[in-house]
Amino acid sequence: MSFLDHIRHANNWNRADFRPFAVAGQVVGHIRLDRIDRLRAFADTFVIAPDHIALAPGLDDFASRSAAMEEVMEALRDEGEFPGWRGEYVPVMREWGDEPLMQVERATCSWLGARSWGVHINGIVYRDGGMHMWIARRARGKQTYPGMLDNMVAGGQPIGLGLMENIIKECAEEADIPVEIATKSRAAGVISYCHQFAGGVKPDQQFSYDLVLPADFTPRNTDGEVESFELWPIERVMETVRQSFAFKFNCNLVIIDFLIRHGLIDADTEPDYMALCLGLKQRP
Amino acid sequence: MSFLDHIRHANNWNRADFRPFAVAGQVVGHIRLDRIDRLRAFADTFVIAPDHIALAPGLDDFASRSAAMEEVMEALRDEGEFPGWRGEYVPVMREWGDEPLMQVERATCSWLGARSWGVHINGIVYRDGGMHMWIARRARGKQTYPGMLDNMVAGGQPIGLGLMENIIKECAEEADIPVEIATKSRAAGVISYCHQFAGGVKPDQQFSYDLVLPADFTPRNTDGEVESFELWPIERVMETVRQSFAFKFNCNLVIIDFLIRHGLIDADTEPDYMALCLGLKQRP
Repeated sequence: MSFLDHIRHANNWNRADFRPFAVAGQVVGHIRLDRIDRLRAFADTFVIAPDHIALAPGLDDFASRSAAMEEVMEALRDEGEFPGWRGEYVPVMREWGDEPLMQVERATCSWLGARSWGVHINGIVYRDGGMHMWIARRARGKQTYPGMLDNMVAGGQPIGLGLMENIIKECAEEADIPVEIATKSRAAGVISYCHQFAGGVKPDQQFSYDLVLPADFTPRNTDGEVESFELWPIERVMETVRQSFAFKFNCNLVIIDFLIRHGLIDADTEPDYMALCLGLKQRP
Repeated sequence: MSFLDHIRHANNWNRADFRPFAVAGQVVGHIRLDRIDRLRAFADTFVIAPDHIALAPGLDDFASRSAAMEEVMEALRDEGEFPGWRGEYVPVMREWGDEPLMQVERATCSWLGARSWGVHINGIVYRDGGMHMWIARRARGKQTYPGMLDNMVAGGQPIGLGLMENIIKECAEEADIPVEIATKSRAAGVISYCHQFAGGVKPDQQFSYDLVLPADFTPRNTDGEVESFELWPIERVMETVRQSFAFKFNCNLVIIDFLIRHGLIDADTEPDYMALCLGLKQRP
C-alpha cells in the first residue's frame, strides 16, 4: 500500500448514492437515497423533490429550522438511529465562516451529509536528537473507531466556540494539557475530504495544528475517550501510516500533511508527491 | 485588497479562450484560439480539429515529437514570438512524475499552455528574536516581470534535473549559496494555479522549500537576474503581500502558503482562511 491509499479511502464518496439537502437555497448536505423515505413522515419539515430535499417553507430562521430539525432527529433517534447522540450541537452552513443556518446534534451530521469542521493537534517532542510524535489510542468503548490510533488531541468544532477555544477545551479533556501549553498550538493549514461510511457521508475539513511539547510532559486522558498515549519516533509514525490502516482514517491525512510540511515526504523520492499535496485539499 | 486577491489573480484563466492540445492522446496544453491559424502552415506537425489540436500521426516518440516541435517553434520565433528563447528545455507531460512525451524550449511553454514545474525557496533568518525573510528584486532588464519582488531563489524545472539538483544550481546562480547550505532546503509542499497572461496560459505547479540561513550569510547574485537582496522582518513581507502587487504574481502564493504553514495566518482571525488553504492547490 502507499500514502495515497489513505487519500483515496478518505475520499470514497459516491455522489450517486445521495440526494442534495438544501437550506435557504444552499446545498448544505446529502442524504442517502435509501433513507429519504424516512423523512416523508415529516411533511411539515421537509419538501422532498425528485432532485433535492429542502426544508419546508416558513422554516426561515436559525431558531425555527433548528427546532424543526431537532424534533425530526429526536424521532429518528428514538427509532434507533444516532447511538452517539450526546447533546452536542454543531453549526450547519455551507462554508467555514458563514453565518450558521441552523444547528443539529453532532451525531446527525453524517446522516444529513452536512459539512463539519474540527481541530487536530500534532503533539511533537524533540529529544535524543530526533523528532517524536505523541500518538493516542482511542478507548475500546468509544462509539466511533474504537481502539484505533489517533492524533494526540482532536475534536469536532461545536457551535459557538472559536478554534483556539476548542483546542484549549480538547487539550484539557483528552490529554490534560494546561492552557499555557495548549495555546502554543500553531495553525498549519487544513485537510479536506469527503468520506462515505455506514453513518452516511462526512464532507469534513480539519484544521491542523502543531504543538511542540516540553520533553518532560506526558499527556494523560481525563474524559475516558483515550486508552493510552505513546511517544513514537516520527519514522515509526511515518511507516505505520504508509503500511497500515491502524490510524483512524482521517488522522492518516493529518499526519501525511504534517510529513509534507516538515519535509519528511519529498518530491524527489515520493512518486505520489503531487497527488498527495493536492489530494489533501479535496472539496466535492 | 486581501490575500485572496492574489489567488484569484493567479487563477484568472478563461478556458473558453483556448483549444486543448493533445499529445499521445493526453491533453498536455491549451493554445489560444487567435493563434491556432498560425499552426495551419505546419500540416506535417499538427492536426487541427474543431475541438482540439493534436500532433500529426507518425510523431510517436520523444525524439520525433521534440524535433518537429522545435522546427515549428523556431519558425515562429523567427517571426518574432518567444523573445525569451534561451535554449533551455523543459519536459512536456501531463503530471509530475510521468515520462516526458517531448521537450520544448522553455519560452514556448505558455504559448502551448503546457504545465510547468519549478522550485521556490523561502530564505529564512532567525535573529533579534524574530523571523526574517530574504527578498529578491528582479533585474530591470529581465524578460519577465522586471523590477518586481521575488522569493530569494526560484527557478523553472529543466528537463533531466531532479528538484534538489535544480535547487543547488539555482541557489548558486541566483544567490551564490554554497551547496552545503543549499542542500539544507526542506521540502514543504506545492502550490498549483493556472494563470492567463499575454504570453498564453501557465498551468504551473511550484514546489516550495524553506531554507533557514545562517544570520551572517548574505545572498549575492551571480547571473545578472537579481538586482538586489534585502532581509525583511516577516511582518513586513506579510503586509506587502496583503496590501500590494509588488511581488511577482506567483511569489505571493508561495509566501501565503509559507505564512499558513508557519501559523502566521490563522483561521480564528483570517476570514478567507479556508479559501486560501484550498485555493493554493487549484488544478484545472
